[in-house]
Amino acid sequence: MIAQCVMEKFVEKTYLYDFYGELLTEHQRRIYESVVFDDLSYAEAAEEENISRQGIHDIIRRCNQSLEEYESKLHLVERFMLARTRLNRIKELAEDENDHRTEIVQTADEILEVL
Amino acid sequence: MIAQCVMEKFVEKTYLYDFYGELLTEHQRRIYESVVFDDLSYAEAAEEENISRQGIHDIIRRCNQSLEEYESKLHLVERFMLARTRLNRIKELAEDENDHRTEIVQTADEILEVL
Repeated sequence: MIAQCVMEKFVEKTYLYDFYGELLTEHQRRIYESVVFDDLSYAEAAEEENISRQGIHDIIRRCNQSLEEYESKLHLVERFMLARTRLNRIKELAEDENDHRTEIVQTADEILEVL
Repeated sequence: MIAQCVMEKFVEKTYLYDFYGELLTEHQRRIYESVVFDDLSYAEAAEEENISRQGIHDIIRRCNQSLEEYESKLHLVERFMLARTRLNRIKELAEDENDHRTEIVQTADEILEVL
């Protein structure tokens, strides 16, 4: 249960970074990637960047805040998830042996609405 | 030709504002909407906001710069256009009398890639 929670949190962070990472500074991106994706400890990242452990901590916290703020304003991750679910539904419908043309058109329209 | 160009420019601005307007401040948004969408002149907006005509000019320019910078980093408008074209293609394929299931699945996959 805890493992699942940690995993979900990680996936969420990955999506947020995927969508909004470009809006962080290069310096923030480098540190964020080292700690969150390359699993460097705060102490290791601090040594690499030649700043304090607390400095790393502050940067990571500020990155997380920025990424979450962007999502609260633009909802790109949320909209992407909705679109992805419906695109997979279109694929299922097209692959089914029965005819689902009307439902495919409806689902495409639903996606156009969330994008 | 000029009319078409002005129209395209307006549509582009509308999309940029649609996708990234939330990232501007409330003050910027109010002035941008007055001038760009409600067709207030700079002089009228200046009077309404109790700032100089030059002040309005600067705010509009800064808004346009910000919106274009967000697009250059996130490409949301570009990605949306691509996705929309392909979703409309899925609808066409589903509405055609012939069977295009394989192409529908492929097109859905292409959309998943651009999103």
